[in-house]
Amino acid sequence: MRRMNIDTVFRVRTEYRVGQLAKLATAVADAGGLIGEIRIRSMGNEHTIRDVVVETSDEAQTRLVEASLRGLDGVEILEIRDGVFDLHRGGKLHMGSTIPLRNISDLRYAYTPGVARVSTAIQREPDLAWEYTSLGKTVGIFTNGTRVLGLGNIGPVASLPVMEGKAVLYDKFSGLSAVPILIDSEDPREFIETVVRVSRSFGGIHLEDIRFPDCLLIEEELDERLPKPVMHDDQHGTAVVALAALINVCQRLGRDMHGARVGQIGLGAAGSAIARLALSYGVQEVLVTDPNEAAVARMVGFGATATTFTDLMARADIVISTTGRPGLIPPTLVRRGQVILALSNPNPEIDPEVAMAAGAAFASDGKTINNALAFPGIFEGALAVRSAKITPEMKLAAALAIAREADANEIVPSPLVRSVHHAVSLAVQVTAKEQGLAGTARL
Amino acid sequence: MRRMNIDTVFRVRTEYRVGQLAKLATAVADAGGLIGEIRIRSMGNEHTIRDVVVETSDEAQTRLVEASLRGLDGVEILEIRDGVFDLHRGGKLHMGSTIPLRNISDLRYAYTPGVARVSTAIQREPDLAWEYTSLGKTVGIFTNGTRVLGLGNIGPVASLPVMEGKAVLYDKFSGLSAVPILIDSEDPREFIETVVRVSRSFGGIHLEDIRFPDCLLIEEELDERLPKPVMHDDQHGTAVVALAALINVCQRLGRDMHGARVGQIGLGAAGSAIARLALSYGVQEVLVTDPNEAAVARMVGFGATATTFTDLMARADIVISTTGRPGLIPPTLVRRGQVILALSNPNPEIDPEVAMAAGAAFASDGKTINNALAFPGIFEGALAVRSAKITPEMKLAAALAIAREADANEIVPSPLVRSVHHAVSLAVQVTAKEQGLAGTARL
Repeated sequence: MRRMNIDTVFRVRTEYRVGQLAKLATAVADAGGLIGEIRIRSMGNEHTIRDVVVETSDEAQTRLVEASLRGLDGVEILEIRDGVFDLHRGGKLHMGSTIPLRNISDLRYAYTPGVARVSTAIQREPDLAWEYTSLGKTVGIFTNGTRVLGLGNIGPVASLPVMEGKAVLYDKFSGLSAVPILIDSEDPREFIETVVRVSRSFGGIHLEDIRFPDCLLIEEELDERLPKPVMHDDQHGTAVVALAALINVCQRLGRDMHGARVGQIGLGAAGSAIARLALSYGVQEVLVTDPNEAAVARMVGFGATATTFTDLMARADIVISTTGRPGLIPPTLVRRGQVILALSNPNPEIDPEVAMAAGAAFASDGKTINNALAFPGIFEGALAVRSAKITPEMKLAAALAIAREADANEIVPSPLVRSVHHAVSLAVQVTAKEQGLAGTARL
Repeated sequence: MRRMNIDTVFRVRTEYRVGQLAKLATAVADAGGLIGEIRIRSMGNEHTIRDVVVETSDEAQTRLVEASLRGLDGVEILEIRDGVFDLHRGGKLHMGSTIPLRNISDLRYAYTPGVARVSTAIQREPDLAWEYTSLGKTVGIFTNGTRVLGLGNIGPVASLPVMEGKAVLYDKFSGLSAVPILIDSEDPREFIETVVRVSRSFGGIHLEDIRFPDCLLIEEELDERLPKPVMHDDQHGTAVVALAALINVCQRLGRDMHGARVGQIGLGAAGSAIARLALSYGVQEVLVTDPNEAAVARMVGFGATATTFTDLMARADIVISTTGRPGLIPPTLVRRGQVILALSNPNPEIDPEVAMAAGAAFASDGKTINNALAFPGIFEGALAVRSAKITPEMKLAAALAIAREADANEIVPSPLVRSVHHAVSLAVQVTAKEQGLAGTARL
């Protein structure tokens, strides 16, 4: 089936008699549209007004659905709206006060003259900022928009809806307050210097949608220079969730993941981090392949084995692909019993059904590997214990927590379940304490 | 009377019989404390527990009150808390989502894959960012903490409670979402470059608590380089509210402010802006004095007249002082009928009562001139019409709006009245349109 990318809301008025909705539904189906939710807006003696959500693969098909509906007797289109754009209208964030401001006394406490005493106290004892400011629960989400989703380099402002989306997830899934910061520079050195200069504004530094290999340099240097948690989500968020999925898949299949041979195809941001995390987890062997020799050499330095695409497909028990090349893996190369995560979005290297038909024991695409499962709890945990670092061990603990929270028919849990993020946060806190990192962060 | 700076909450348990509170109140008074609010926490058959707010001038006096209460029979102190610190605990801000996230469909709209379509649309047509992101209602509050309130250079993190306070006021008094950004540099050039590089994150640039004269250079260059509203609040917020107050004072006294001679003592951030705004307003003559010759020369360049402190006191109809030097103005220099705004906080250049006793027609200190009256509406108005500039004319319009909103017994209205900020915003919008500035801002 074709991928349905667009949700359009058709507000339609139909005559109040039997068969109208059936007629409408048939017309949508004839144009290849898929009907989603149907909501009644009003119901009169003569007419019913409904919002009908129709999924289509592209704009052209939406126009086909429209034409098909307009051709119907007794059905009138009142309005056509794009559900996604409706949701994003006005943006998705607001910085709100957490204190009341009812009277002049409140004002004098929250602002001058009262606030001067709080500032003076922090000046004398900087650690009081953990207690008397929002810093300890605030994360900056930094991007320059050079590698946004599957869209490439779309620049900082066009990337903002994605950053706002991340901040929404922080709000909904953790106790953190996240602020998108758009850096207007494609130069990694300028990026680093800018983040360092505004870093006092945040307890944690979340890096997002920065192109490879700039993201490696940026993350490494910021992690070294700043006394607070730094993490590039496209690398480690994805890796943590992928590992969680693999742990559960292996368990379901009755296999020992530690004894497995893992093959990573594609060593961009996500692929490199997956290979590294698999090594940290202690799998027997990690095979890697990528046209970028520097990226391969880097992984070999961490303990991976370089090989060819064909050899990797022939030898790996678990194959993960993050290449951005749809259909890269032909079914003929799938080995019987292989586990395959073809993660490129929106179109995977091999369709899961095709992989299963070719003999894979398990196959999935990127839709399941939602990194929204990882970053809210990881940063919440790191900040809760004031850890200066997010270590590989903390990422492993997060992956194990995510894996544990899945129920019997999931390979990873739904990110909408709040307790999952709490479990991730706790796992990270425990690990940070075990590693002696609690209390090492500075504001 | 001594200035009361500290509010302490004493949680006390008294025996449930007549006269206990009187005894307690007498003990507080004996120690020089001033009783504020008294709240009942619980009331039993034998005891009553109350939170008693006591204002004192300093910590030593708070200890005196404590000792005095501990000396009482039948009164037990259960807890002593600082009201101001209580309010600031945990910080004062949270970045919240403005959209629901109830199910996977919401998630797919707000985040991937839906968000990719919004980003693509903005990439093609950048102006859509006004509609589909929060940018058009988001203000960055930038400081390096080099000149915070009356505290001086306390650094960025210690200044954060003040910045959070400003953001609280934006939330409560306007529709804007404000984000404190702490710049970890005292170098004005680094400050400017950093703001420029993160400026795409915000619709408006609010500068705050930056030392003089760095603040002049920083504001001027950012205003020139960025296609969006820029304003240093310590300069213009204060100037707008001071002018509003003077307009009302002159009106009450039956004087024509345009025909008045205005004397500005002290040409730091606020003083310079007040002198300039008075010139923009069109007063007959503006006399200025300051030890800083460059600051004086700059004002003379704008049309002011340089003079000495004594000459200014002798000739000005209206005297405004912003020197940070308590008691600078001796009562002997006050001219009969003069209007005096002695704005230095927390201690003015002359006590209003002393000035009145010396013959002033009107005198006030800085407590009234609350710049919370100006900045929320000014930025809201500028962003509402997408003006690239905040012009002197817009500041004048804001001052006039604030003056108009005061009722008969105020010289400026209370900032807690929401309609005041709305009036300021509308006045700014109208002026921006008249000046042809609507639609000139770029995100």
